[in-house]
Amino acid sequence: MLTYVLDKTSEEPLYVQIYRYIKKDIERGIIKAEEKLPSKRALAENLGVSIITVENAYDQLMSEGYVKSLPKKGYFAESIAVIQPETVSEKVINSIVRQDNAPQAFDFPFTIWARLMREELSENREKLMTRPPMNGIYELRAAIAKHLKQFRSMDVSPDRIVIGAGTEYLYMLINILIGKGLTFGVEDPGYSKISDIYSCLGGNCAYIPMESDGVDIDALKASGADIMHISPSHHFPTGNVTSIGKRYSLLSWASEKENRYIIEDDYDSEFRLSGRPIPSLMSIDVADKVIYINTFSKSLSPTIRISYMILPQSLMDKFKEMLGFCSCTVSTFEQYTLARFINDGYFEKHINRVRHLYKKRRDSLLKKTEEHSIFDGCTITGQDSGLHCLIKFQTQLCDKELLDEVTSLGIHAELLSKYYRHEPKEPLKTLILYYV
Amino acid sequence: MLTYVLDKTSEEPLYVQIYRYIKKDIERGIIKAEEKLPSKRALAENLGVSIITVENAYDQLMSEGYVKSLPKKGYFAESIAVIQPETVSEKVINSIVRQDNAPQAFDFPFTIWARLMREELSENREKLMTRPPMNGIYELRAAIAKHLKQFRSMDVSPDRIVIGAGTEYLYMLINILIGKGLTFGVEDPGYSKISDIYSCLGGNCAYIPMESDGVDIDALKASGADIMHISPSHHFPTGNVTSIGKRYSLLSWASEKENRYIIEDDYDSEFRLSGRPIPSLMSIDVADKVIYINTFSKSLSPTIRISYMILPQSLMDKFKEMLGFCSCTVSTFEQYTLARFINDGYFEKHINRVRHLYKKRRDSLLKKTEEHSIFDGCTITGQDSGLHCLIKFQTQLCDKELLDEVTSLGIHAELLSKYYRHEPKEPLKTLILYYV
Repeated sequence: MLTYVLDKTSEEPLYVQIYRYIKKDIERGIIKAEEKLPSKRALAENLGVSIITVENAYDQLMSEGYVKSLPKKGYFAESIAVIQPETVSEKVINSIVRQDNAPQAFDFPFTIWARLMREELSENREKLMTRPPMNGIYELRAAIAKHLKQFRSMDVSPDRIVIGAGTEYLYMLINILIGKGLTFGVEDPGYSKISDIYSCLGGNCAYIPMESDGVDIDALKASGADIMHISPSHHFPTGNVTSIGKRYSLLSWASEKENRYIIEDDYDSEFRLSGRPIPSLMSIDVADKVIYINTFSKSLSPTIRISYMILPQSLMDKFKEMLGFCSCTVSTFEQYTLARFINDGYFEKHINRVRHLYKKRRDSLLKKTEEHSIFDGCTITGQDSGLHCLIKFQTQLCDKELLDEVTSLGIHAELLSKYYRHEPKEPLKTLILYYV
Repeated sequence: MLTYVLDKTSEEPLYVQIYRYIKKDIERGIIKAEEKLPSKRALAENLGVSIITVENAYDQLMSEGYVKSLPKKGYFAESIAVIQPETVSEKVINSIVRQDNAPQAFDFPFTIWARLMREELSENREKLMTRPPMNGIYELRAAIAKHLKQFRSMDVSPDRIVIGAGTEYLYMLINILIGKGLTFGVEDPGYSKISDIYSCLGGNCAYIPMESDGVDIDALKASGADIMHISPSHHFPTGNVTSIGKRYSLLSWASEKENRYIIEDDYDSEFRLSGRPIPSLMSIDVADKVIYINTFSKSLSPTIRISYMILPQSLMDKFKEMLGFCSCTVSTFEQYTLARFINDGYFEKHINRVRHLYKKRRDSLLKKTEEHSIFDGCTITGQDSGLHCLIKFQTQLCDKELLDEVTSLGIHAELLSKYYRHEPKEPLKTLILYYV
């Protein structure tokens, strides 16, 4: 029986302590692959905690791919190709929906932003007129590093952060940096804008099928891709989380060739609605293969164009050499305002407020699904994170009729099939329902 | 003798009226190539105006390349390959120096900007949160079109304007739009950042030598360039203006092949310190071959990243098709603020104020050249426009010693030779002197 020393006086919840212990044991091989874990009740008794505490720990382990649950058999450790266990650390929060469904006007903290902007304009004129380095003002990069440390437990030097006017622009920089004629692996289904932009830049796109625990690694290997673009913490639109096993396989794939990289698109990491956050892929990468990308256009407003990427040190060196002469694309006015917005705690408050708002919207949406017969027997997934969930229907209706029916209830919905490169042969009978 | 009907009650100065008449006659072939023009005195008597009025008209015609002056012989019409004479129209103002020597902190109108920004943030929240089209908000594009009409006599539809976060970003878009593996013709000497960015984007650079009236057309033809990047109204660093004859030759060169274009970099068109403005190349282009680029980063602050380009209609159509799905890289907050800044007349006031400031700085710099012996016998050129002039010295000092000597007088100076791709064989003995 697993026995761990829990610290009941710690600020860290008990379930997190249990989750940490079990995760470490799995990573170190102390709990072997496929080994059965104690039942929730048995472990709860053994550790002197409530069953719900163990359940929370197991849920987190499952959502990160360390543990699987087999119906009527219990919980089992996943088989993991443990590559870099000692560097694994835990991270924070997660989720919002993609661009077109970003927060609404009324969510933006206008009054605070206006005040900070005004203060900057009256107090820091000389700084505002000073040309920043190509990767952005230090104050904002430091604020982002602090934020990532606090909310995503990522240890990132501000020197590796590059600020740019939107993720599309950052993709352009990556393309300049890594080279021409590359093949970009993109998730299928996935967000079509990503393949559109890579195609625009002259890249080829390889569409890698999604499985429930991440992209199909064999398909990736066969695809000839140089760069794999993924959202491991919360895939759009399926909501899938890439399992820890697949994460290591991806890192292993990337380390096989010099010019292979993984772009970790953490587009919705600020809005996980329940449960613990999923650690970032970058945090377990010791081979300098992950480019982490995130944006404030999602969490603040799509009309504020401030995104950032974290480059592996080797790429950062190349960046400075190749592109250091260019100008940062975000105005200093907005960079300094955002830096203060984060440092003064407003960003955290804003995120909490918006997350709460979406939770309420989600709950009211889920309530609707109990009230209308069209939802009878449906399966809901992905409701823990992001601004949408997936609903698979038991219905004789075709996809188009299904969509019309649900839309007529005043619900913002889309067909899941829309996000597939090739229309699936079997009708998916699945809709994406948005909370916005 | 040339005889024109002048309207002394018109708001248009007499010298402008004379300039227009003579220009039109040269374009129409009424005044033949190499034909001698009347002396200033004779024409002044004939038209009943002062000699200084005719002199101003001749100066303007010379700076635009319609007329040349031969020492002790008089004024002669230039030989011009008249391609599209009926579309020639006149334009406005001109000049400031490149990026690294842009206006200083204290020049920026902080108080007005802060007020406009605050008003936007309190009054136009919904608009600010609405995702603009890829080419920017309509209000700013319309304001730019109006400004260009008023100050540069350019007739441009707001629909052909693309707003972007800096000129480097716009070059990236052009590169995506026109194609890969292109050869970019760049001016030699020239601003090295331009060739640096094209090289970064995977383009080849052909260095086309500058002559006193614009780039060497034969060298351009032999270079295999697809795109020619020029600053016809005020070349950096020489200050040369591309003559009207060369302008038509350039347009003729571009029209020979489908995928040939000219990028007209009008980087300093807001700050001509004296004389009439030089018309833009785009204004005489009827073959849809000129991409016009300008920026507010020069005229407002290098830390505000707002630039724009005007695309030929065919490229604009392609732009919408290829890149319409992308997001505009400038935040709506700054776009709306700038639109109001222009529409409410503050931009014009700002430009006038800064122009006046630089004029004073220039005058004080030129005064210094009269006070120190190092300047004895020197030749000053380019002092009418931009934030710098060129000074060719009569000296036995080598370039390095010359630079040290002038710098020690508290003057911000650079070697002209620095801007040549290949170090000139003869020492140039020429410095660029900045007014900032």
